[in-house]
Amino acid sequence: MKKKLAVLGGTGQEGGALARRWAQAGYPIVIGSRDKARAEAKAREILTRAPKAAVSGASLEDAARAGEIVVLSVPYAAHGVTLLAIRDAVQGKIVVDVTVPLVPPRVARVQLPAEGAAAVAAQQALGPDVKVVSAFQNVAAHLLDHDGEVPCDVLVCGDDKDARAEVVTLARDAGLRAFHGGALANSAAAEALTSVLIFLNGRYRTTAGVRFTGLPDDAE
Amino acid sequence: MKKKLAVLGGTGQEGGALARRWAQAGYPIVIGSRDKARAEAKAREILTRAPKAAVSGASLEDAARAGEIVVLSVPYAAHGVTLLAIRDAVQGKIVVDVTVPLVPPRVARVQLPAEGAAAVAAQQALGPDVKVVSAFQNVAAHLLDHDGEVPCDVLVCGDDKDARAEVVTLARDAGLRAFHGGALANSAAAEALTSVLIFLNGRYRTTAGVRFTGLPDDAE
Repeated sequence: MKKKLAVLGGTGQEGGALARRWAQAGYPIVIGSRDKARAEAKAREILTRAPKAAVSGASLEDAARAGEIVVLSVPYAAHGVTLLAIRDAVQGKIVVDVTVPLVPPRVARVQLPAEGAAAVAAQQALGPDVKVVSAFQNVAAHLLDHDGEVPCDVLVCGDDKDARAEVVTLARDAGLRAFHGGALANSAAAEALTSVLIFLNGRYRTTAGVRFTGLPDDAE
Repeated sequence: MKKKLAVLGGTGQEGGALARRWAQAGYPIVIGSRDKARAEAKAREILTRAPKAAVSGASLEDAARAGEIVVLSVPYAAHGVTLLAIRDAVQGKIVVDVTVPLVPPRVARVQLPAEGAAAVAAQQALGPDVKVVSAFQNVAAHLLDHDGEVPCDVLVCGDDKDARAEVVTLARDAGLRAFHGGALANSAAAEALTSVLIFLNGRYRTTAGVRFTGLPDDAE
C-alpha cells in the first residue's frame, strides 16, 4: 500500500505535474491549496489523466494533515507563511521541500537565504521532529508535464538517510533519475543551480537541465 | 598570438593539469608557487609532455605579474593570503578563480563563505579593476590529468561578459565543454556542487561529474 502524498501548491505547474505522475504511479494524492476550490478542480483535472487514481483537493492545512508524506511546492514568497500554517500538521512526517529561493526580478542570479538554503530554513521553521528532505528544484515544470523522458536529474538532500531514500524512490516512481545528494545543507547546490539554469535558458534559448555523470540510473 | 597564462598553484594536480592542457594548446604558461623551485620542476615536467610549449616557473607574485590572464588554483585555506599577495600584480587583468570553499573535515557538506561564494570574496579582495571569473570547480583533477574526454562541464561565472567569454574559450581550448553561467554570484552553484560531487563519489564509489542538458557543445 503506497503512502498518501499531500502536494501543497499542487495547483501550480510543478506541483501539479508531480502530483499527476505520482497519481499515475499509484500513490493516493491530496492536493493542497490556500484556495480549496482550486485544489479540488486540480484533483478533477488529474483524474481525467489518471482515472484509476485516488486524488482529492483540500486546504493547505487539511492536506498537510491528511498526507503521510508532505510535498511543499509553493512560490518562495509563500514559503515562510506556509511553513507556519502546516507546522503542527507535519510533526513526525517527512516534508519534501521543492522550494527555490528565487528573488524577482533577478531570478537568474543566485540569492541564497541567510540560512544557507531554503530547505534549511524550512527545517528550522518546522523543528527537529520533522524530516525535511529537498528535491526537484532543477526540473523544469513543463518537462514534468509531458510524459516523455525528462533530461534532468533530481538531487535529494536531507539529514535523515532513510527519509532521503524514501524521496529517491518517490522521484524514481515519478519517472525521474534521482540520487542521494547528502546533508540538507547541500540543498544549497540544487537551489543555486536553478538560477543558473534560468540564466542558461535565457542566454542559449533552451530548456536546460542537469545530469550527473559517472552514476548508474538505479544507483543505491 | 595567445595570451600568457599564469597558473598559481599550478604545482597542484588540478592547476598542473590545466596548465599542461593549455601548454599543449599553444598558450605560453608561467607556473606560480610559493616554492619557486617546485614551480620550475613542474614546468619541466609539463615540457616533457608538451615539448614545443613555452612553460616556466616562478614565485606567486612574479607569475601573477607575468601572466596576462591569472588562474588561481590554490587550496581554500590559502585563498585569502594568495589574493593579498597578488593584488597589485593583477590589477586590470582577468583572474580566473578555481577555488572551492571546502572546509575540512566535512568536505562533502556545502559550506559557502559569508560573501556567498569564494569567487565573490576574491572580487572583493582584489577590487573593482580586476575582472574575476570563476570556472573549473567541478572537474575532478585526475580526469583532467588524462587526455581522454572529460565527462564534466565547466560553468563560467563573472560579472564581465567579455571576460567570461575569454574564459569559456580557455576552457574549450583545454578540451572541456564550457558555458556562460551568469553573474559572479552564480559561482555559488558551482562551488556548492563540488561538495555534492564529493558526496556522490563517496556514496556511489565513482568519480561523479555534471553535464548541462539542452545545450549544444559550442553554444555561444
